[in-house]
Formats: sequence, structure tokens, C-alpha cells
Amino acid sequence: MSYCEVLRIGHRPERDKRITTHVALTARAFGASRISFHRADSRILDTVSDVCKKFGGDFKIETTSNPKRFLKDWPGKIIHLTMFGISIDEEVDKIKELPEPLLFVVGAEKVPPWVFELSDYNIAIGNQPHSEVAALSVALSKIYGNVYNQNFEGGEVKVIPSSERRNMVDTSDS
Amino acid sequence: MSYCEVLRIGHRPERDKRITTHVALTARAFGASRISFHRADSRILDTVSDVCKKFGGDFKIETTSNPKRFLKDWPGKIIHLTMFGISIDEEVDKIKELPEPLLFVVGAEKVPPWVFELSDYNIAIGNQPHSEVAALSVALSKIYGNVYNQNFEGGEVKVIPSSERRNMVDTSDS
Repeated sequence: MSYCEVLRIGHRPERDKRITTHVALTARAFGASRISFHRADSRILDTVSDVCKKFGGDFKIETTSNPKRFLKDWPGKIIHLTMFGISIDEEVDKIKELPEPLLFVVGAEKVPPWVFELSDYNIAIGNQPHSEVAALSVALSKIYGNVYNQNFEGGEVKVIPSSERRNMVDTSDS
Repeated sequence: MSYCEVLRIGHRPERDKRITTHVALTARAFGASRISFHRADSRILDTVSDVCKKFGGDFKIETTSNPKRFLKDWPGKIIHLTMFGISIDEEVDKIKELPEPLLFVVGAEKVPPWVFELSDYNIAIGNQPHSEVAALSVALSKIYGNVYNQNFEGGEVKVIPSSERRNMVDTSDS
């Protein structure tokens, strides 16, 4: 999987706390290297950092006070995931050929027009309202394949896949 | 796409309000016919009903006070999406061949053991913690293809896909 990052814009503290946490965990679990949030929210940073410590890897979490500048300064192509965009099925072959680094942008409700304008691709996972978490996970798995099968190094616990029950082992001493 | 439904269990009012809403909207947008919630939450019912009215279709939303009974009474196969399960890549071909109706079960944190026991498949979209919204959307698009490209009948508005901007038309008079 080539290098990619996620930018989460329009986070509204309190209302979006859990959704933004799920966006971040999805970015990590589906192989993105870093997420940047517009507006800091220390509880989200703490939750995601705890997961990284427990389950391993070196996923990075940052905040940006100026997402417009972030987009302008991004060195590669930008893919904005939006229900108003062109179907991913029309563009996925082209996106797969893009050089790294890619930036995936997901907003909360009502994304400002400059996000559409500064993005190279405005891509929809269907044109029905659903979820930025769904959009990000489906986009990453369409573009990169089964990237959700991550095995991160250095965690404290590891899931043993089971058809029957929860099974997790402590790996911190090994 | 064959008939399927979603059961959302373990919803914790307040904490899970927005995630459960996203689970419901994702179920609708990815072609499921109905979602059942364990525990009623009128605000979620209102939000999802509003989306259905505005964007069309006949997605059904119900509540169940007894999810264990719901699972026991389900007439088809049950697929529980969990980070502790077997990789979807190992089971997807088998699942595609199952007769309808299928039930997809998504929990919040700490799902009770009987969910694993009463499900025919305990399936993981990777064994890292991420999101039930991501799990549901990726599972449905792996099993049923690009089911997110839904065009529902009878809504008041319709998105016109665009590579450049938000564009929605009023269809309620047509």
C-alpha cells in the first residue's frame, strides 16, 4: 500500500466526538499513516493514542488550525470524499495509478466550497447521505484492496481471529 | 441485491447516538431493507426518518426490546461483524452463496457471548479496532458489490453527481 494520509475537517466538538474518533481509528486500521484534525480535541487524541499503544503501529495524529493551507501545501493529489461527487467506480482505476502521497479529505456536514475546489477528485461512495466513516473505509478498500488486514508491530495485545468468541492475547511481554 | 437487514445491538443512549445514526444511514444507503435497534431512541428514529423522507426509498426502522429473541427467531443466516472474527476474505465467497434473508449484526463495545453463539458467521473486517460503520459498509460492498449506488424512488431531493461542487435538485414537484 502506498503512503496516504487523512484530513478530517469541520469537526464540531461534542457533536462529532465519536464519529471523528471512528474516522481516525478507521484511517489507522485501513493503513493510512496519519490523520490531521481541523480543531484539536484532546479526548479524541487520547482515545486514538490509547488504541495505538495497545494495538501497535506508528499511526500519527495531529491537529491543524488551517485546513485550507494544509490542502494548498499538500505535495500530492487530494481526494475529497463527498456524497455530491462522481462515483468512485468511474474514477477508481485512475486513482489507483496516482503517485503517492495521496490525501483523503472527509468533512462533517456542509463542507465549504474551497474543499471541492482545492481537491483533485471529488468522489462519492454513492450519492445518498450516509457516513464519512463508511466513505473512508470503502474508498480505501476499493483503492488499496484488503488493507484492513493490518498487523501492527509493538502493541500490547493481539486478536486471535475466531469463529466463536472474543480472543485476545497479551503480547507485551513477548 | 438479495434481501438483508441489520440489527444494531448494545446502543448506549447519548454516547452512541451519532454512531448508531451513521449505522442506520449506511444500512439504508448500502441497500439493506430494514434496521432494528436494541433500545428505542426517538432522536435517531427521527433523524433517519427525515433522511428517508427527503431522499426516498422505503427503508424501515424498528426497535426490539429483545435482541436475543430477535436472533433466535431470524429465519435465515446471521452474520455478526466483529473485530474478533474470521477475516471476511476467507468467508466472502461462501456468504455470497447464502440464500436470503441475511441478517447483519453490529454491536457497540463489548458484545455479549450469545451474539457470537447465535450467529452463523462471526466475521472481521480486519482484527484492529475501528468502527461498526466501517465494518458494515465494507462487508455489504464486498458481498453485494457497488450497492452504494442506490437510486431511491419518491424523495424530495436528488444529488446530481459533480466533480466540482454540491448540486442537489428538488424533485418533489416532478
